[in-house]
Amino acid sequence: MIQKITSRDNEKIKQSVKLLKSAKDRREQNAFIIEGARLCDEALKSGAQIEDAFFTETASEKFSELFNKAECSAENIHIVSDQILALLSDTKTPQGMVFTVTMLDKKNQFDTINRIGNYIALENISDPNNLGTILRTAEALGIDGVILSEDCCDIYSPKVVRGSMGAVFRVKVQIESDMIAWINKCNSNGMTTLASVPDCTAEKITDLQLKGAAVMLVGNEANGLTQEAIQACNSLVTIPMNGDAESLNASVAASILMWEMVRKTSK
Amino acid sequence: MIQKITSRDNEKIKQSVKLLKSAKDRREQNAFIIEGARLCDEALKSGAQIEDAFFTETASEKFSELFNKAECSAENIHIVSDQILALLSDTKTPQGMVFTVTMLDKKNQFDTINRIGNYIALENISDPNNLGTILRTAEALGIDGVILSEDCCDIYSPKVVRGSMGAVFRVKVQIESDMIAWINKCNSNGMTTLASVPDCTAEKITDLQLKGAAVMLVGNEANGLTQEAIQACNSLVTIPMNGDAESLNASVAASILMWEMVRKTSK
Repeated sequence: MIQKITSRDNEKIKQSVKLLKSAKDRREQNAFIIEGARLCDEALKSGAQIEDAFFTETASEKFSELFNKAECSAENIHIVSDQILALLSDTKTPQGMVFTVTMLDKKNQFDTINRIGNYIALENISDPNNLGTILRTAEALGIDGVILSEDCCDIYSPKVVRGSMGAVFRVKVQIESDMIAWINKCNSNGMTTLASVPDCTAEKITDLQLKGAAVMLVGNEANGLTQEAIQACNSLVTIPMNGDAESLNASVAASILMWEMVRKTSK
Repeated sequence: MIQKITSRDNEKIKQSVKLLKSAKDRREQNAFIIEGARLCDEALKSGAQIEDAFFTETASEKFSELFNKAECSAENIHIVSDQILALLSDTKTPQGMVFTVTMLDKKNQFDTINRIGNYIALENISDPNNLGTILRTAEALGIDGVILSEDCCDIYSPKVVRGSMGAVFRVKVQIESDMIAWINKCNSNGMTTLASVPDCTAEKITDLQLKGAAVMLVGNEANGLTQEAIQACNSLVTIPMNGDAESLNASVAASILMWEMVRKTSK
């Protein structure tokens, strides 16, 4: 049943607005918020569980196909004014539709690690734009899965979800509370575990030979990988760079590393 | 001589604030604005012409070495209040120093194109974050020069300068009013001109053989390269991607393309 919401004091609106603001609120509600025709369509296609779908009158007509799909899939569907929709949006010119979505399973994606897969593991990536871009690139390049340390920025933040271009719905992502234990498990499974470091004495990624399953670790934007993570890995690799240059942006570095992993193993 | 400015109505402040706002104002004043210890230091090191250096009292003491260098190099040096400095800043927590800098020479960098160089040419890149990242990556990977079509976003916008991590002061950049004529000139000089396209029938960048000087063209975020640019180039290349994936972010695509050019020609 389609419900009209006309007051900004409506409890549903107040709860949903919180999903924009903080990771803590998202965890408490076990949900996140997305907006715009493209992302909402991706969510529907992926089979994610839509809790509330909010449309403006105009958007419900303009995107009638999407509205009809949402009517079938969402638990609740609401028509709201432009003013109320704006509260639920963090873009300057909202497209008139917002969904709240139940958090996806990001816990147990890799119980059986594929013996020929390429994985990327991110330790304490703190910029949502970087995380979004890395997820998008991981999907485009065919990376088999992404592992995030618990101290990475929240994968459900609006910036990450938007920057990922919906990859957050499709790429296998596992959030790991103990990255070191996870690396050790990979080592026991015979995987190559690669710590990427800005250190010219490490093996150049261009010289690296890869066979079988491998995981590439990329660290925090300012501080790189922790010493513990570097020591847990069985190899150190680096991107050869121009002497007097600043280092690469974290998402570009991760992209080049993923590209090289895929290139080496797809021949 | 160090001058104190205490009023926000001071003509110098009013003119400098305009440099934050629009490319038009920057062109009219033939200057741009930078902030923060790191970028200001890069500007001083690069020998760029500093017109006005603004410091808060606190910053002039905290960054005394930089303040002394600025005293020697800048045409004018000013002490301003925190409130006035905030007007000249577009970051949330300014570091207390802002320079206005004369625009760099971005017109005649490539009269003699290096016969073994790798160049990247950007057509209508519209997102300042992408342009900043591409400049930063170009420097880190040792690209010999960047060519920008006139309809790219303004290289002197605060976001581009910041995102480039100062590469804007160091990388050779040429702004071209007629990109097609420039490509034709490269062709006449015997260079390889490569149009990057999201088209699986184009040659895979992984299969491409490169010898001698080459220029890689990358197009607008939403629309890619113009037909005219594609037709002017002597080869089409593409980044092989996962079937059901969204395409790559423009700065990631450009980074992978630059990486491959450098990798192929550095062996």
